[in-house]
Amino acid sequence: MTKLASDEVLNGVWCPALMPLDAKLEPDVEKFIDHCRWTLEEGCHGLVMFGTTGEANSFSVEERIRVLDAAIDAGVPADRMMVGTGCAALPDTVRLTRHANDRGALGILMLPPFYYKGASDRALAESYDRVIEGVGTDDFRLVLYHIPQVSGVPITPELVDLVQARHPKTLAGIKDSTGDWEHSKMLIERFADLAVFPGAENLVAAGLEVGGAGCISAGCNVNASAIRALYDAALAGEDVTERHADVERIRLILQRYALIPAMKQMIADAKGDPGWTRLRPPLMPLNEADAKALGADLQDLDFRLAA
Amino acid sequence: MTKLASDEVLNGVWCPALMPLDAKLEPDVEKFIDHCRWTLEEGCHGLVMFGTTGEANSFSVEERIRVLDAAIDAGVPADRMMVGTGCAALPDTVRLTRHANDRGALGILMLPPFYYKGASDRALAESYDRVIEGVGTDDFRLVLYHIPQVSGVPITPELVDLVQARHPKTLAGIKDSTGDWEHSKMLIERFADLAVFPGAENLVAAGLEVGGAGCISAGCNVNASAIRALYDAALAGEDVTERHADVERIRLILQRYALIPAMKQMIADAKGDPGWTRLRPPLMPLNEADAKALGADLQDLDFRLAA
Repeated sequence: MTKLASDEVLNGVWCPALMPLDAKLEPDVEKFIDHCRWTLEEGCHGLVMFGTTGEANSFSVEERIRVLDAAIDAGVPADRMMVGTGCAALPDTVRLTRHANDRGALGILMLPPFYYKGASDRALAESYDRVIEGVGTDDFRLVLYHIPQVSGVPITPELVDLVQARHPKTLAGIKDSTGDWEHSKMLIERFADLAVFPGAENLVAAGLEVGGAGCISAGCNVNASAIRALYDAALAGEDVTERHADVERIRLILQRYALIPAMKQMIADAKGDPGWTRLRPPLMPLNEADAKALGADLQDLDFRLAA
Repeated sequence: MTKLASDEVLNGVWCPALMPLDAKLEPDVEKFIDHCRWTLEEGCHGLVMFGTTGEANSFSVEERIRVLDAAIDAGVPADRMMVGTGCAALPDTVRLTRHANDRGALGILMLPPFYYKGASDRALAESYDRVIEGVGTDDFRLVLYHIPQVSGVPITPELVDLVQARHPKTLAGIKDSTGDWEHSKMLIERFADLAVFPGAENLVAAGLEVGGAGCISAGCNVNASAIRALYDAALAGEDVTERHADVERIRLILQRYALIPAMKQMIADAKGDPGWTRLRPPLMPLNEADAKALGADLQDLDFRLAA
């Protein structure tokens, strides 16, 4: 599986899959597999298994391995997966990365170790070194995960330089979840040989114009077909003004509420399955008032989930 | 082991033990046990196993269990331990808490789940509920761990109220690692029935005056006997001006550098054992210049570790 970091195999629209839970707040594997299939059918190029949207770090290493195995065994294609593996403890990151590689994941989305704050770029580069050394191979596609508002640990451009200098064959991309267009643009332009993914669907079109790789965006859990159509149209050089505005409108509604519970609520409503609203603490379902307001907002927009 | 939250069994000077590492950056269990014994001999009432100072969240659940078992099996007394168990994933917190309880730990120091930021007090209270439910007993001493500058997730007074209302028998204390005297004072006064520990030895004397429980302080790894003597003198109502000033002087020197690597460096120097300087990324040893400067600072002060 030798590859060049500069290949374009990662480009596209990626859905960081939500994780439905059972009554014990454990992953509902069957519902999860259905959801993975549905977002792919709706047009996503690939799935991020265990991103922030998927409540990754709320699950133990064992839970993450079990769910990933079940999904791949059920036929969800590993070669259309990026697997989130970054934990606070490096041995956990090593174990999850090795497992995902062994199962044939197309890519690995890796948070830096996120408990201690203020680590230097050199210390974080050393963390990535240790993980790659622990995994025992550098023959995989590493996507660095920048989501400082949650992790508290930024992936600076200087850190990207360090990782790229040490692991040019492995480093394949960056996910920028800041939602800040200027920041995404800077990364896309500075790291032209990497797949740089904005973390929001309303940056897809602008991103593609300057060489971005598509998006890895939570919104794909509920609005995949429109986001894919936007991506395709933008890639084909069509006028995407209207498509962009439609996609952005939904995104902005979701952002009025807590994004992850809001999307779970939408799916629960669309499927008539209140179980879909569950989250593992510290995340919590929308309260009743917000759930109703969200429903009303979406109705005003005449937006229906194709569930 | 039924107890009242208001008992004073937790009061005292607690050392959040540093974790020495071997050449593979895995816990050096033998050195760790020696260090635990030494800090107790130097006068600490107890040991916090796997606090922030001990790089807890840089180790996997398995590593933490293995090291704790080894220490207790070697005779380090479990009834003089608080065990840090709070992880990002609640099942990990459950597993570590159950294990520590089963091994007879005197108390449990529990971070809130720390990946997601901005969780409400209600959501965090729910997290503690779920952990206690998962552990299967509420018959243990829970100490809430407030270290927002690292965890990113504060333990607000309102959260303490919620946990206390739901688990009055279990909630026994709060560790306040802000280093902010006004904040510690507020907690001590507001939660007079809980053991409230400032996280720094220079707040011991002031804390005791208003009803504080002592301290859980990193400095105990290198200056335990002086901190214990300060505690005893303050408790006896003696004039502690000079003792306090001496203890604070060392603390302020350590704080000039990164605290954890600085203490590991001090111990390495005192023992002539450079292996003691190791840290697991993302933490890093002091650079050579800082290591030298620290040595000079301490020499100026004529401070020697009784290693």
